[in-house]
Amino acid sequence: MEFNFSDSCLNMRSSEIRNLMKYATRPDIISFSGGMPGNSLFPTEEIDEIYNNLPIDVKRAGFQYGATIGYQPLIESVKNHLRRKGLPVEDNELIITAGSLQSINIITKIFINPGDTILTEYPCFIGATGVFQSFIANLHGIPIDKDGIIIAELDEALKKFPKAKILYLTPYFHNPAGILYSKERKKELLDYLKNKEIIMLEDDCYGDLYFDDADKELCVPMKTIDPENPVICYSSSFSKILGPGMRLGWLLARPEIIAKCELAKQSTDACSSTFTQVIANEFLSQGKMYSYIERMRVEYKNRAVTMMKCLDEFMPPEVKWVKPRGGFYIWVELPEHIDSTEVLKETMKEGAVFVIGKAFDPYDKKNNCFRLAYSHTPPEQIRKGIEIIATVIKRLL
Amino acid sequence: MEFNFSDSCLNMRSSEIRNLMKYATRPDIISFSGGMPGNSLFPTEEIDEIYNNLPIDVKRAGFQYGATIGYQPLIESVKNHLRRKGLPVEDNELIITAGSLQSINIITKIFINPGDTILTEYPCFIGATGVFQSFIANLHGIPIDKDGIIIAELDEALKKFPKAKILYLTPYFHNPAGILYSKERKKELLDYLKNKEIIMLEDDCYGDLYFDDADKELCVPMKTIDPENPVICYSSSFSKILGPGMRLGWLLARPEIIAKCELAKQSTDACSSTFTQVIANEFLSQGKMYSYIERMRVEYKNRAVTMMKCLDEFMPPEVKWVKPRGGFYIWVELPEHIDSTEVLKETMKEGAVFVIGKAFDPYDKKNNCFRLAYSHTPPEQIRKGIEIIATVIKRLL
Repeated sequence: MEFNFSDSCLNMRSSEIRNLMKYATRPDIISFSGGMPGNSLFPTEEIDEIYNNLPIDVKRAGFQYGATIGYQPLIESVKNHLRRKGLPVEDNELIITAGSLQSINIITKIFINPGDTILTEYPCFIGATGVFQSFIANLHGIPIDKDGIIIAELDEALKKFPKAKILYLTPYFHNPAGILYSKERKKELLDYLKNKEIIMLEDDCYGDLYFDDADKELCVPMKTIDPENPVICYSSSFSKILGPGMRLGWLLARPEIIAKCELAKQSTDACSSTFTQVIANEFLSQGKMYSYIERMRVEYKNRAVTMMKCLDEFMPPEVKWVKPRGGFYIWVELPEHIDSTEVLKETMKEGAVFVIGKAFDPYDKKNNCFRLAYSHTPPEQIRKGIEIIATVIKRLL
Repeated sequence: MEFNFSDSCLNMRSSEIRNLMKYATRPDIISFSGGMPGNSLFPTEEIDEIYNNLPIDVKRAGFQYGATIGYQPLIESVKNHLRRKGLPVEDNELIITAGSLQSINIITKIFINPGDTILTEYPCFIGATGVFQSFIANLHGIPIDKDGIIIAELDEALKKFPKAKILYLTPYFHNPAGILYSKERKKELLDYLKNKEIIMLEDDCYGDLYFDDADKELCVPMKTIDPENPVICYSSSFSKILGPGMRLGWLLARPEIIAKCELAKQSTDACSSTFTQVIANEFLSQGKMYSYIERMRVEYKNRAVTMMKCLDEFMPPEVKWVKPRGGFYIWVELPEHIDSTEVLKETMKEGAVFVIGKAFDPYDKKNNCFRLAYSHTPPEQIRKGIEIIATVIKRLL
C-alpha cells in the first residue's frame, strides 16, 4: 500500500547509516560508535540512595504530569548550576527538555520554515542535522579548525545566505571533531556576530568533562560573555553527567523565546518525565552530581589516553587526529582517497566499529574521516579495537 | 526585540486557556480541570518493590540510551498486553512513545503538510488539536452523539474535504465528552470508511477503565475488527494506568508507517526514557498493572458516582450531562446563552475550577459546555466543588 507522506517525512535522512550502526550491537563487537557513557559508569548507587529516601509526596509528584516548562525544583537546581558557570539566568528563562536533541528540535520548530537556512559547523552532530532536515531546512556547513569555526568561512556563508536564521555550534569537546574552541576564536566569533540577526544555538553537552583543570576556563560558555548580542540560546543535558536514559536536558534563552518553546513542547510531549526530573533534581541539588563528574573526568581521561597511545602505536603515518582534551571523541582523518565506509565494512567483519565521516556532513558526502568514541569502551578492549581498525586502514592505503 | 518566528510557531494555539488553567494549581482550590489520576492513587509501593529488585544490568540499561523504537522487553510486554485485547500485533509494528500526545505528534509529522485537512470529533481532546495546529493543519470538527461520531456528518465533511488525511477519534470514554462508542456505530463507521484513503488514528487511553464488566466488550478497539481496511493507527498510554510522569505510550500501526514514525521520533527526542521504560516493563510483565487497574476501576467509579449524585442534587434542570461509564470525565452542557468562561471566572473566585468548552472546539468557539474531571479529586471534595459550580450557574441563568 502506498501512503501519502508529508514533505517533512520524505526529507528525513535515510536510514543507511543507522542500518550500518545496527551491527554495533552484536555482543562480540568492540564498538567505538555510540556517543554514550559506559554502562558500568552510571551512578546507580547514588540514585538508589536518592530513590529510597524520597518523601512520599515528592515521589507521588514524580508519577504525575508536570508543567510543560519543567518540574520547578529542578528548574531552580539547574539555574543554580548555571549560575556557577556564570550564565545569565536572571535575565533569561529556562525550560527542561527531553535532552539536548529536543532543545534543538523545539528551537528549529519555532524558527524554521521549509527552505530557511541553518548554518552548522562542518563536521556537525548527526542528531542535529537529522532534526534540521526533518524541518526541511537548507543546511550549510562551515569548516572548523583546531580552534573552532573559521570566521572567514562563516563570513562567506552569511554573504551567500544573509537571511540564515540559526548558527548551530558545539564548541566544547565538539561532537564529532573533539575540539575545544580557543578563547580568541570565541571572542572573534562574538565580535563578528554583534548586531547580526542570526541566532546562535550553543550546544554544550560535554563542557563539564574537561580532562585538565587548566582547560576549565576554556569551557566557559559564550552566553556568559555577552548574553544579549548576539542572541544565544544555550542548550545542555544530563545525558553525559547522569545518564541518557533519564532523557533530560535544558535550554536557557530569552523569555520571549522560551515562551514559544513552551508552546512547542506542549504539542510535542506535554512535559518531560517527572519521574526522572525528581531524581535528577536530587542528584544535582544534593551535590552528588559534582562528585560524580569529578570521577568521570578521571575515567574518561584514562580511556582517551589509552586510545591515544594505541593510535600512536598502530596507525600508519598518513592518518591524523586531534588529541582530545575532554568529552567523548577522537576525530580521525584519512588520506582523501580512502572512504571510511569501506574501512568500516572490513573492520565490522573483524570485530570493531565506529561512525563513518559522512554521517556528520550536512551534505552527506565527505567521507575520509571517522569518529571514535572512547567513552563506553573499557580500556582493555580499546587496544584490540584500534589494532583491528589500523590493520584494515594499512591494507586499504 | 522582534524575533522572526516560523509559521508553525505563529499558528500554535494562544495560551489564553492555559493561562486560565494556571489558577487551578492554587492549593486551596477544588480542581476538576486536569485529566489526570489523583496523586494518592499512584502505585508507589509496587514501583518501590520493582525498583529495589531490578538486576544491576537491567538498572544500568535504564540509565543508557535505548533504541528509538523502544526498549525491547517493553515492546514485547506491550505486545502481549495488546494480544489480550485481540489487536493484530503480528502484522503490525509497535513503537514506544513519550505518551499518546507524542504518538499524535509523530503521526501528524509524517502525514501532514501545512493546509492538509484533519477530521476530528467535536468536541476533541485539546492536546490533539494543539498538535494539529502546530503543523498548520486545516481542522474540521464532526459532531458526536451518545453513540459516537455521527456518520452523516462525517460523510458531509469528507465530501467537503475529500483529501482529508487523518480522522482522529477517542472512542472509549471520550475526552472530554465521556461517551463510549456503541457496537453498531463502530460497525457503521468501519463500513463507511472501507476503501477510503483517510487514515484513522484511534486514541485509546481510557479503554481499560470501564466501570462495569458489561461494558468491557464495547471497549474492544476498532483496529481488532478489520485491522487493514480502513488503515488504523492505534495509540494508547501508561498515563492513566501507571502514571503520566513516566511519559510512556505506544503506537501500533502498519510496518511502513512505524518505520517513518521511528525516523520522526529519532529527530524529536532520540528515544523515550529508558529508566521509566524499564520500570513500566516490570509493572506490566509481572502482572502488577492488571491488579492496579482493577483497583482503579472501583476507585474511579466511586468518584464518578459521587459526582453524579452531586450534579443531580445541585444542578438546575436546564443543565445536562452524560452519565459516565468509565474514564475520567463528565461533559456538562449549559443552555446556549451561557458562556462557560463566565461561569469559570466566578467559580474560580469561590474555589472551584474546570475546563471551559471552547478548549475542546477545533474552532475555539463553542463555549456553552465544560468538562469536569472526577479522577483526581477526593470524593469528600467533590460535593463542595459541584455545589460551588451549580450555585454560580443558577445565578447566571
